[in-house]
This record gives sequence, structure tokens and C-alpha cells, in this order.
Amino acid sequence: CVESGMVLEEVCQLVESKDWYFPLDLGARGSCRIGGNVSTNAGGNRVLRYGTTRDLVMGIEVVLPDGTVLNMLRRLIKNNTGLDLKHLFIGTEGRYGIITKVMLRLFPKPERRYSALLAMNNFAQITSLLKFARATMPQLSSFEVMWKNYITVAAEVTGSAVPFDGAYQYYVLVEIEGVDSPRLEEDFQAFLENALEQEHADDAIIPQNIAQSQALWILRDASAESMRARAPYLAFDIGIPLKDMSNFIDEVEEAIAKDYPDIECQLFGHLGDGNLHLTTARMREEDFIPVEELVYQITQRYKGSITAEHGIGVIKKPFLHYSRSEEELKLMEQIRQLLNPDNALNNGRVID
Amino acid sequence: CVESGMVLEEVCQLVESKDWYFPLDLGARGSCRIGGNVSTNAGGNRVLRYGTTRDLVMGIEVVLPDGTVLNMLRRLIKNNTGLDLKHLFIGTEGRYGIITKVMLRLFPKPERRYSALLAMNNFAQITSLLKFARATMPQLSSFEVMWKNYITVAAEVTGSAVPFDGAYQYYVLVEIEGVDSPRLEEDFQAFLENALEQEHADDAIIPQNIAQSQALWILRDASAESMRARAPYLAFDIGIPLKDMSNFIDEVEEAIAKDYPDIECQLFGHLGDGNLHLTTARMREEDFIPVEELVYQITQRYKGSITAEHGIGVIKKPFLHYSRSEEELKLMEQIRQLLNPDNALNNGRVID
Repeated sequence: CVESGMVLEEVCQLVESKDWYFPLDLGARGSCRIGGNVSTNAGGNRVLRYGTTRDLVMGIEVVLPDGTVLNMLRRLIKNNTGLDLKHLFIGTEGRYGIITKVMLRLFPKPERRYSALLAMNNFAQITSLLKFARATMPQLSSFEVMWKNYITVAAEVTGSAVPFDGAYQYYVLVEIEGVDSPRLEEDFQAFLENALEQEHADDAIIPQNIAQSQALWILRDASAESMRARAPYLAFDIGIPLKDMSNFIDEVEEAIAKDYPDIECQLFGHLGDGNLHLTTARMREEDFIPVEELVYQITQRYKGSITAEHGIGVIKKPFLHYSRSEEELKLMEQIRQLLNPDNALNNGRVID
Repeated sequence: CVESGMVLEEVCQLVESKDWYFPLDLGARGSCRIGGNVSTNAGGNRVLRYGTTRDLVMGIEVVLPDGTVLNMLRRLIKNNTGLDLKHLFIGTEGRYGIITKVMLRLFPKPERRYSALLAMNNFAQITSLLKFARATMPQLSSFEVMWKNYITVAAEVTGSAVPFDGAYQYYVLVEIEGVDSPRLEEDFQAFLENALEQEHADDAIIPQNIAQSQALWILRDASAESMRARAPYLAFDIGIPLKDMSNFIDEVEEAIAKDYPDIECQLFGHLGDGNLHLTTARMREEDFIPVEELVYQITQRYKGSITAEHGIGVIKKPFLHYSRSEEELKLMEQIRQLLNPDNALNNGRVID
């Protein structure tokens, strides 16, 4: 159980010093606080294996605006005593109550990680690789996809070489976590060999040491710098069912190319989770709202989410109706009136 | 996406016929319906790996008493557009709305299963075995614990031999699921050898074929017959943090032995999930309520749940306050008033 003000990186270090593991990991690890992670239901790099923050929380303590303290600090994986009230406060960005303490769900500490970068030219290979990886590698912890137009900028801002001399359209960063045993490395080698043999990928870079492995993650972690290098930009955080992802991307890219030929699209994402990060870069600021409308209209048609992991906050509030029906918005607002009747908490965010 | 009236076993067969896997499995698989599984947040044999029903549901459609249809049939693992409304209806036993359709979360279809029965005399070995299994066997799908007093009755009602000639206090049924490859069996063999060598268990039965494997599950699946063989009985479904499980059991057994020396306790459970099934058998019916009070008072002291997977319904309603604070009960009731103001849905269950 930790106080909500603790910084995520300190939480992880504290847990690991006790020989356990809290798997939440994201770029802001050094500054974000665990209470914020819970109230925004943060995602990050290991959702594929461990779930979002919602899945990593056993219990919370919440204070309501009228001073009521809800102590729900239970250490239980299974608890079927009616409504699981913690879900009213997880991912609702402080609109219904303030999270003051968090009971974490811990996991065995992984002793070793192995990463590899695979490359391919057909999008269908990405989905077949993911299915193959999930079926054969239960240790799979990350499956991060980067498009050529993302890799080019990321290599530029980090001063790295473009992998495979830029010969491929798609790059998948795969990572597994497990105990330190020869079997883990053998399993990973066997997975990579089979993936290439069965043509789920056309090429692979298999790091020979930790430095080479870190070099692969540098490209993935450069997303913020890559965006800024092509400002002004919009950063989208779209959730789309994986089976529709390819069609969705084609439609978005075509629509943007048609009406906004100067915009550069960078694409990367936690594809294992159906989470695509699209950056529309080198924009004119007057195009911000029309481009958002364009992308969110297509998202709505695919029953997607306008924010898979970053949350609504202030900026996405005007677009919430693209992902939520009138009936849902009404119910969210009714619950706001019930729990936060004077609108004293985080007014202006998520919903009115 | 399936209609809520579909029987669970048919759901699983339909999914498997399309080469996918829906991992929910419980004794009532042939009669329970998926809508009921979702509205009671069913648990079962594979929670350890796949989570409860809540984790297996991507979206639902709900009808409120005023006729409002909430279509939340999204196929998204990640969706951070404010309050995740489906949690108002999952596990709330129809008190807030009626689930009419369910969008299932599917997994790669496992090709092989391996089971083994391990035995030990110290409870601490169970927790060390679980930690070892979770760390080294990501394919782990079941970790079912049976006490000697449960095994004895289960062997009797099924006409089986007591395993290991009854030499041990505790029996753990371990199962893994994965792809059909020599490595899976080798991994399982290595796990069993190491578990014995490192004294996480004292003995093991490793089935040599499917019939022998099924014979192990027969003992676990005989829980309903075992209870009935010692009627009248009470069946408890307790959630307790695993680290407190041993102390909790000692306290309950001592308290019952002291005041009710004729009662026989049978113990088994999904221990990997902190879920203990305690049966108090050969009772007098006038002792039902005092024994419930006794067990639930101890549960409350350990911040446990009076029902880990079976739900509150009618029978456990008078005892809900042992697991929920006044503030929580008030909020559950306020949300009932908001969504189901005329108390038209499932009146008399869970909360007033």
C-alpha cells in the first residue's frame, strides 16, 4: 500500500528492493505519481502481459468532496460483494473523488529480458506475428510497432542508424521477461527462428548484449523528441480493434493526404493492445481542429476510442461524443452529480 | 459478440470451432449462461492466468429499467474515455441493469494441457510453490489446493483411491496450457523436478496419459458431491490475501472445533487467487447462522471477502456488512436509486 503522491519510479524501486515487481512502465516514470497513474488508468509498454493500471490495483482509498472516506484497501484478486466501487475512480481523472492511497498488485520479479527487432513489408505479417508470439511465448511483455515514417525521424533525432538500411515498411520491437535460465533464451531464439521461417517477419536484429538491446529501445522511446522535431503537430492516441487497424490507417492516411498534402504522418504504437499513436506533423495550427474532426470521425466509424491510454482531460473533451453515446454521457454526468454535486473536483475536465 | 442467453459451454465450443479460445470454465458450464456469468463476475478454474469474467469481457449491451439501451459493445482492450461504465453492471447481479449482449475477449487456443498433483505437509510450501510456479511457468493456468479432509471425502464419493496413500496434509493440482511442442512438456518436467528438489513439494503424481490426468481432476471436480455426502452443510466462498491464508484457516478451524466439535471442515480452493472454499459439514441447521457469523467475523478481521466468486444473491445479503463499510453500502444503494429507482430489477438481492 502506497500514498498516491509517490512517484512511479520510486514505487517500482521500492517494490523491487523487496524482491517483487510492479510492471507499470511509461516514459513519464520519473515524474508521474501513482495516484495520477490510477486516476488516468495509465497504459504503457507492458499492457499486453500485465494489463492497464486498472488491472494492477487491488484496492484504493478515496475521499469524496463531502469528506466521506471510502477505504477500499483490500488485498484481494477476487471479491464479488456487489459493485466494485474502485472502478468509479480509476480512469475518471479525479472527477468523482480523490484517490489518496493505492494497494498495488505485485508480480514475481523478472530476472532477465530479451528484446529483438523484427521487420516486414506487409501489415498482415504484424497480426500473424502477434498471434504466433502470444500463442508460443507466454513471457511476451512488449509488442511495439513502428512504421517507416516514424523510424526515419526517430533515427534522425537520436543520431542512430535506420535499422535494416530502411528496407522495410514495419518494425516490431518484441520483448520477453522471465527467470534467468538457459531455457528462456532458447525459447526466444526458437521463437525468432520460427517467426522468420514461417514468414511472420522478413528480417530480424537480435541484440548480442544489453547495450545493443537498449539501442533498439532508444528508437521507441524517442517518440516525444520525434514529434517535437516536426512541430507544430497533433498527437493522437487511438484505440482500434486490431483486425480493423490496417483499414483504419489506410483511410486516415488517404484522407489526410487528400486534404492536407503537406502534413507528415508518423505512426507507432502498442499494437498488441490495439493502441495506435498517430502524429500529424508539420501542420498549420488552423488545421488542428479540422484534422481532429477528420481522424475522430473515422475512429467513430470503427467503434474505436479517441483515447486509448492518455485520457480525456481538457483537450479531448470536445471530441468525447465521437467515442461515447448520448446515453453513456448522460450516465457519466449523473454519476458526477451524485458524487461531486458542487462540481468541486477537477471541473472542466472529461465531462461537464 | 454473443447474446447473453447463450450457455457457456456453447459459447466456448463456438469460439473453439473458429480456432480461438474463451478461457472461462466452471462446474456449471453446461447450464449457466454467459449473461449470468458476466452479471455475477464468475471465477472458476483459470482465473490465475486469465482473470475473472470481468477481465474476459471487452464490451456489453445493457438495458436500464427506463428502457434506455446502453450500447457498449466495443472491441477495445484500452479505452480511457472517462468512466468505464461496464463495471456498473459486471458483478452486480442485475441490480442496475440487464445485460443483453456480450463482446468476448478471446485468446490463442491452447493445443496441449499438462497436469500434475503435488503433495506436501507444510502450508508454507504451498505459497513457495505458487511463487516458484508463477515465476518460472508463465503457462500456468490452474493452481488448485485440496486439504486432506477434502481429499478423503472426495475419494470416497468418487470411488477413487486416496492419492499418496493419504500420507500428506495438502495436495496441489497444477495445470499448464500452451502450444503442442516438445518444449512445453520439457518445461513442465523441469518445473516438477525443480519443485521437488527445492522442497516446494514432498511428492508428485505425474500422469502418463490423458486418462490419468482426468483422474486427478475428478477429485477436484467432486466438490459438490463431497458436500452433499456430509449434509447438512454450509459452503463458504472466502477471499483472503494469500499471505494471511494459513493464519485465517487456523483461527477458523480452532474456533469451530471449540464451539462445534461435531462439525467436519472440508477445505479446498483456487489458492492462486486467494479463494478458499470451506465447507462446514455434518451440521445441525440451528447452527447455520451462528457459524456464518463466526466465519465472517474472522473474515472481516483479515479484510477478506465473504464471497470471492459466487456473489451475494439472497443468502449472503445479511452478511454483506462484514466485507463492506457503511460508506460503501450507502454508495452502492445511491447508485441503485439512480439506475433502478423503482427497484424493479432483482429486488431482494445484494442490497436494499
